[in-house]
Amino acid sequence: MSTSKSSSGSSTKTHPKLSLEWSRVLIEQVSPAMDAGDFPVKRTVGESVHVKARIFCDGHDKITAEVLFKRKKQKAWVTLLLQPIGNDWWQTQFIIEALEDYEFCVRAWIDPFETWREELLKKWNAQVSDIESCFLEGAALLEGVCPSIPNAQKAWFTDIIQQLKSAKNPKETVLAVSDPQLQVVMLNHAPQESVAESLVYAINVDRPKARFSSWYEFFPRSTGEKGAHGNFKTATKALDRIAAMGFDVIYLPPIHPIGLAYRKGPNNTLKANASDPGSPWAIGSKEGGHKAVHPELGSIADFKAFVKQANKKGLEVALDIAFQCSPDHPYVKDHPEWFRHRPDGTIKYAENPPKKYQDIYPFDFECEAWPALWQELKSVVEFWIEQGVFIFRVDNPHTKPLAFWEWLIAEIRQNHPETLFLAEAFTRPAIMKYLAKIGFSQSYSYFTWRNTKRELSEFVTELTQTDLIDCMRPNFFANTPDILHEFLQSGGRPSFEIRLILAATLGANYGIYGPPFELCIGDAMPASEEYRDSEKYQVRTWDLASEQSIEPLVTRINTIRKNNPALQYDRYVEFLETDNAQILAYTKSDPASENIILTIVNLDPFTAQAGWVQFKGADWGEASYQVHDLLSDARYLWQGKRNYVSLDPSICPAHVFKLRKRIKNEKDFEYYQ
Amino acid sequence: MSTSKSSSGSSTKTHPKLSLEWSRVLIEQVSPAMDAGDFPVKRTVGESVHVKARIFCDGHDKITAEVLFKRKKQKAWVTLLLQPIGNDWWQTQFIIEALEDYEFCVRAWIDPFETWREELLKKWNAQVSDIESCFLEGAALLEGVCPSIPNAQKAWFTDIIQQLKSAKNPKETVLAVSDPQLQVVMLNHAPQESVAESLVYAINVDRPKARFSSWYEFFPRSTGEKGAHGNFKTATKALDRIAAMGFDVIYLPPIHPIGLAYRKGPNNTLKANASDPGSPWAIGSKEGGHKAVHPELGSIADFKAFVKQANKKGLEVALDIAFQCSPDHPYVKDHPEWFRHRPDGTIKYAENPPKKYQDIYPFDFECEAWPALWQELKSVVEFWIEQGVFIFRVDNPHTKPLAFWEWLIAEIRQNHPETLFLAEAFTRPAIMKYLAKIGFSQSYSYFTWRNTKRELSEFVTELTQTDLIDCMRPNFFANTPDILHEFLQSGGRPSFEIRLILAATLGANYGIYGPPFELCIGDAMPASEEYRDSEKYQVRTWDLASEQSIEPLVTRINTIRKNNPALQYDRYVEFLETDNAQILAYTKSDPASENIILTIVNLDPFTAQAGWVQFKGADWGEASYQVHDLLSDARYLWQGKRNYVSLDPSICPAHVFKLRKRIKNEKDFEYYQ
Repeated sequence: MSTSKSSSGSSTKTHPKLSLEWSRVLIEQVSPAMDAGDFPVKRTVGESVHVKARIFCDGHDKITAEVLFKRKKQKAWVTLLLQPIGNDWWQTQFIIEALEDYEFCVRAWIDPFETWREELLKKWNAQVSDIESCFLEGAALLEGVCPSIPNAQKAWFTDIIQQLKSAKNPKETVLAVSDPQLQVVMLNHAPQESVAESLVYAINVDRPKARFSSWYEFFPRSTGEKGAHGNFKTATKALDRIAAMGFDVIYLPPIHPIGLAYRKGPNNTLKANASDPGSPWAIGSKEGGHKAVHPELGSIADFKAFVKQANKKGLEVALDIAFQCSPDHPYVKDHPEWFRHRPDGTIKYAENPPKKYQDIYPFDFECEAWPALWQELKSVVEFWIEQGVFIFRVDNPHTKPLAFWEWLIAEIRQNHPETLFLAEAFTRPAIMKYLAKIGFSQSYSYFTWRNTKRELSEFVTELTQTDLIDCMRPNFFANTPDILHEFLQSGGRPSFEIRLILAATLGANYGIYGPPFELCIGDAMPASEEYRDSEKYQVRTWDLASEQSIEPLVTRINTIRKNNPALQYDRYVEFLETDNAQILAYTKSDPASENIILTIVNLDPFTAQAGWVQFKGADWGEASYQVHDLLSDARYLWQGKRNYVSLDPSICPAHVFKLRKRIKNEKDFEYYQ
Repeated sequence: MSTSKSSSGSSTKTHPKLSLEWSRVLIEQVSPAMDAGDFPVKRTVGESVHVKARIFCDGHDKITAEVLFKRKKQKAWVTLLLQPIGNDWWQTQFIIEALEDYEFCVRAWIDPFETWREELLKKWNAQVSDIESCFLEGAALLEGVCPSIPNAQKAWFTDIIQQLKSAKNPKETVLAVSDPQLQVVMLNHAPQESVAESLVYAINVDRPKARFSSWYEFFPRSTGEKGAHGNFKTATKALDRIAAMGFDVIYLPPIHPIGLAYRKGPNNTLKANASDPGSPWAIGSKEGGHKAVHPELGSIADFKAFVKQANKKGLEVALDIAFQCSPDHPYVKDHPEWFRHRPDGTIKYAENPPKKYQDIYPFDFECEAWPALWQELKSVVEFWIEQGVFIFRVDNPHTKPLAFWEWLIAEIRQNHPETLFLAEAFTRPAIMKYLAKIGFSQSYSYFTWRNTKRELSEFVTELTQTDLIDCMRPNFFANTPDILHEFLQSGGRPSFEIRLILAATLGANYGIYGPPFELCIGDAMPASEEYRDSEKYQVRTWDLASEQSIEPLVTRINTIRKNNPALQYDRYVEFLETDNAQILAYTKSDPASENIILTIVNLDPFTAQAGWVQFKGADWGEASYQVHDLLSDARYLWQGKRNYVSLDPSICPAHVFKLRKRIKNEKDFEYYQ
């Protein structure tokens, strides 16, 4: 199957006088491709790449077309024939087998043998008179190929040529040239005419966790006993509970020394007391900067031990990359050239008038010394990779030059292709998409602000049915330390259940910020999405045994996600019609395993809602089938396209149905698959 | 307004060690562009080019962006500022003023002055404490620009700098930097940071007739008296009638000598009698080939006289380019190397088994001697241009290499940008579109086969609401010598009226093949779209005075087209909802002149149909307005979005309404515009 890319057949005709290079074959609209190939598309190991292209030529000649693909670092291309599917569209697919970036291109040519064979068969079937002349044309074609035919096949091959030349038994001759073996031989040995080649398209390959992950964000400093400042040792004790809930990524806010200058007090007040711990995002003090650990959390050794314990429990640690400095950061003294200075000599701090963030100095990514700055920031990422961290949540990447991230991520992935970057860019759509295109593996999204049936279906449809699906992997965080949506502030426990189920079934990647989430904490600052007494500015203790806790539901939904491939991909989602504006219904499916999950959610946290749910496709017609609620374990027999549901949020606001079709086994027993 | 393209400000930062070139500003999704700029878009002289792009950078800095455009042959670029319209989209427009190909690009940069000014105003409005420091930043910016300020403005400019430095009258200072004159000065003289430039995009410019034309196809040989073979002199007599009907292009099937070998008889029979004239598409005899005129039609001089007379009457002559040869064509003897030979020594004729076209030899566009062949074919087009022909209808371009047409059309347009090419490619969509992309000015379309309400609305929507609008100009022929659709075969006179009105109001370019069309001839060969006793194979005489003739309607509709710019563009069409599947309603409009035409057609040629027509937009709400039927001259007062129509095909199957809004003049008289 392997071949060199430009193996046989030259192709394009050129003429110096006409200064023209041309081929009769055209290749267009190759996919998957981002911006016509300007950016790579994204896939994970094990995923298939479904290649499609429009390929055509003038006239009625037959085209043969193939995909060539390889790992970027390898030299030899693998070839796969493309299949025509009508209207000049061709397609095939291949599987990503290694954690390496891939590339592919499309190649097509005019196949003189197939062109001739089709004409012959047409003439034969139409019983035209001059079939002999057509035979002779075929003989000439075969004779041209004869020298390259292996000896073992030579006799058989020359016999066909003789048959064509003699035209004694036309019927037998027509059969002989229809021999599939002859087609294979001609495909391999016949010259290719008018060869056309597409651009080479890049595929960035990540490990599966880029596509399917369940995140749990928490503040290690709030894991101490009886309100004491927690540390990596106390945080280690929290790991069992988090692992038992079924998460696989724990994300920690910055763990570095926290600056003292302009330190913020509780609820973001301007004056902090001596005992206030400050915001972890005000990075850097005399104890160190981005490569150091906050002394109260422990040492680098403690952190490494924590990572080791987490990994043992199936949890990966994700760190926060916040490229900014407290005024106390060692960089400020050692590298003043990396910051922007005002005419009065002071360093320019972050502002959003009237707000002043005097505790935060942004880097000047455009300063004269930018190459040194960029290299230093890269070394920060490399430092934490050395400590065993391979997932980074990047704070506000849209406020730093986009080219910086493109460079940084490419540099890191070169030696560490397993590294993942989650972009926290709550900004305009074009910039969010651009960050995804230049390399971020996952992206925070507008999910928290999409709450109605229409908002959710339009939003998810845009994410999955446009070219966003090939570059941007949304991570549906249901809350964050910065975003406690009004819906959760006012909707009580059911609202947390609703948002959890939506996030976990709509997003193959999703996350929560706990314990506030599973404890259904909806207490916010007035007219704000900020938590009251936010952990961003103070140490909290949480009553994990609270009766309010939805920990069992979290555990259940994560188990369902693990058992059902349909929920591990974003690509295949379809919204169903319902006759109640509060009832949202959608299927997610995994074509490979034929796993289909139908989720139906009552979006109203206060009132029971009922209505009819309607399938679109032809798959759900007359026959009955079973819907198995993986939340309650109840099973219902459904019939036809329209079925009735009723959901009481005080019991459970959703069904997460696995669809089971009725099939018969070889002994004629019927069962539901 | 004119400036050099890379005038001021360098921009991208580079670093040899990082081998990186970067700018903070990104430009994406520039339109109009075909396939991201791989092909030119099409416009006609007088049309506007609406440029749109997505432009953004990291952070909150202010961007300034401009379009640069010029005629390709000129050197100096004209610049126009782009306006932001939200969500990182920017737009502006310019007018095509000359029959020359244009090009444009987009350029954007970070504007430090505007960035600073916005921050200052925010701080001022928020009454922050350290406004002085901000003033100093502004002073530094202005001082950097000071050397390039013209002397006349220097005093005023340095005064602003002094105000900023002293900060004595902050309110006055804020007013001074908000002076629009300062913004203009800074726009012109301040350095541009992080300049980004898009690709250069090409615009192929044609004369307006490429966009708006009314074609009449006829066979000159059928203009003879009493059944005699017509010629250019008798055809000249037909011109008055055609001009009076309001057409502006007359298209003649091939006018070259017709081959004798394998000449086809009436109704495409294989044996012709000595008196049968043969098919004009079997080009070439001992009397000459593609540069000769069929002797029975006259001489080259006769043809030139005919063209001259046509032009006097406002008619342009379009010739047929059919690049194929009768076996008697001089090329066959003089250039056997231009044809494909079979092993038995004969030249390969065209076939579609079981059909054999022994009267037609295709050229072998890939032969060894292809450059000479291509040059010769180019000289054919040049020959007819010399005779005064600037419009060519190209026969079956999709059966010749697409690269040939791309080359030929570019070569011809270089010296004769007024030349137009109509592609007769009834083939698959990808190839039709490709021919348009590589240069054909107009394209035959599937219009004849789109007859139901759904077919027509989907078809026209695809042509006008996708990127086809920027490359392909459909020519809606209602019939051709090859296509007499079943609808016309069975629908009688009303069916011709229906198809005429549809073609002429849906297509800015449209045509009919007459006299059979206006005489409502629906007589076809059995189970075929071929005319019975087709003019393709015999000379016909037509009873132009027939009572069946819809000549008056043709005249009327062409007059309406001339008087209403809305019907001279394809871009702005909208289908309206109607509650009757036989009633099709659509508006076409010309935003520049505010001309709006609402056409409502009963698609049923047999029965009167009635129903309600519903506007979508907000424009047609409560107020009453007048709809003026330009066919019947009747005027109706309509109210609101929904209105009733009833159309009897035995009277007239359509309304072609001009919409007239009620307006008041300065003396408070109300009238309908």
